[in-house]
Amino acid sequence: MIGRLCVIGVGLIGGSIAKAARTRGLCREIVGVDADAANLARALELGVIDAGYPEIAPGLDGTDWVLIATPVGAFEPVLAAIRTSWSADAVYTDVGSTKQSVIAAARRVFGEVPVNFVPGHPIAGAEKSGVEAAKDDLYTGRRVILTPTTNTDEQALRRVEAFWQALGARVTRMDPAHHDEVLAATSHLPHVLAYALVHMLGRKDEQQEIFQYAAGGFRDFTRIASSDPTMWLDICLANREQIVPLLAQLSGELGRVADLLETGAADELFDYFAEARGARQRYLDQSEKQP
Amino acid sequence: MIGRLCVIGVGLIGGSIAKAARTRGLCREIVGVDADAANLARALELGVIDAGYPEIAPGLDGTDWVLIATPVGAFEPVLAAIRTSWSADAVYTDVGSTKQSVIAAARRVFGEVPVNFVPGHPIAGAEKSGVEAAKDDLYTGRRVILTPTTNTDEQALRRVEAFWQALGARVTRMDPAHHDEVLAATSHLPHVLAYALVHMLGRKDEQQEIFQYAAGGFRDFTRIASSDPTMWLDICLANREQIVPLLAQLSGELGRVADLLETGAADELFDYFAEARGARQRYLDQSEKQP
Repeated sequence: MIGRLCVIGVGLIGGSIAKAARTRGLCREIVGVDADAANLARALELGVIDAGYPEIAPGLDGTDWVLIATPVGAFEPVLAAIRTSWSADAVYTDVGSTKQSVIAAARRVFGEVPVNFVPGHPIAGAEKSGVEAAKDDLYTGRRVILTPTTNTDEQALRRVEAFWQALGARVTRMDPAHHDEVLAATSHLPHVLAYALVHMLGRKDEQQEIFQYAAGGFRDFTRIASSDPTMWLDICLANREQIVPLLAQLSGELGRVADLLETGAADELFDYFAEARGARQRYLDQSEKQP
Repeated sequence: MIGRLCVIGVGLIGGSIAKAARTRGLCREIVGVDADAANLARALELGVIDAGYPEIAPGLDGTDWVLIATPVGAFEPVLAAIRTSWSADAVYTDVGSTKQSVIAAARRVFGEVPVNFVPGHPIAGAEKSGVEAAKDDLYTGRRVILTPTTNTDEQALRRVEAFWQALGARVTRMDPAHHDEVLAATSHLPHVLAYALVHMLGRKDEQQEIFQYAAGGFRDFTRIASSDPTMWLDICLANREQIVPLLAQLSGELGRVADLLETGAADELFDYFAEARGARQRYLDQSEKQP
């Protein structure tokens, strides 16, 4: 059992983990650190945390488990602030959406990634943000990817695995580079695409009010364009080496469809759409197989 | 009140209109025409239609209201088949997703668009297809766009308006070219985009199983890639003059984001994402204002 859990960044994700840890009785006490005073006060009011601190150093006092849940762009200063009180007996982990950037930040701060820091990424989120949106079942049945480095302590890794499993998540270990490649395709690219489409259509809407004629499919398709811009700026910059080539590849796909349309290549276009539908069905079948 | 309504194409859309017309007591009898024998049999079993015909000519006998709900690619042969029994006393309308192509098909068959043919487009659908998926409330609170030509009879136009209003829809009149421009942006482009993204990621998934790490946002974002390929092939070919330039414009947007990522232009990228989020909020606010 964890004695005192410190959650750095008590937003949707940090708040949901705190709530879930409390519901499942995984720790005696939970403290939160958040630079946003209103959000921190709300986290206290909601009982998500037992004590709140605007700065990291006092929040770490007496903690044996530290969860970093800030946007990934803030990791280097966060790790630097933790460094002075780093304890060999505590477990440190994070929930950053990109893993190579987090590991690189740790190397810059510590020289080498500390053996008791276990980089992780729970694959669930929402377009909402802030502790108000936190839910204690956000991770039930969801996947969590842990990306240990070569010097990660196996004991610390197993404790973080057990923590997530106790929250109802399904844990996978993965190479950090492979994590970033996979997530660029399934998460980062779709977010950039949704932002780009809505950005473009928003300008058209200002000129001729197109949004009022958008159907229900448009609402679903653009939902992720309502995601927190700060968080996604960080993710996209941190993983740009993976994302930029995918954007070029997607432009190539769009060009291919445009060619098929212009030449009226009905059979090829039908096959193209049908293959895409088949691929999505494969994705759905996989999701449904999951417990 | 309509005496005998003939629905040509008893799929999701035609079937939903038939169900809604029956629930609201708008007609005494509903007959259906469908080339898909299994779908036609199911429409009869479900009581969506009172009689079913595999061919158009016998289905039209004694009807005073004809609704064309086939994929838009089939309109020219459908109109040609209706032509021999065209009645000046009946009302003819359609639900095709592109309007200029429908009007052009009518001109090819009749020389000029008949005064009692009212081109229309109810803006609602689903990724499901077939009469099994039909629902009698599919159009409640939804928009329907009617695109009369200069020689459309005002009386026929008002009757079609009243029909949709009785189904709970909100009816707008629009120029056919403007309809195609607006729908290309809010509906056709997103569908092509979803197909293209899933097509590209489907190939990656075959190589390295990325779909199992896709989060909930991915499911919503790709939902429209499960739409019927036959229907969307027709729509995209019919409206390709509008869609192709939008694809080029979107590739330009993706190139711009890629440039901002490569140069690490954090402020511009934040503004870009924040503007997109703001535009989607404007869309949501509009949707919620609607009754």
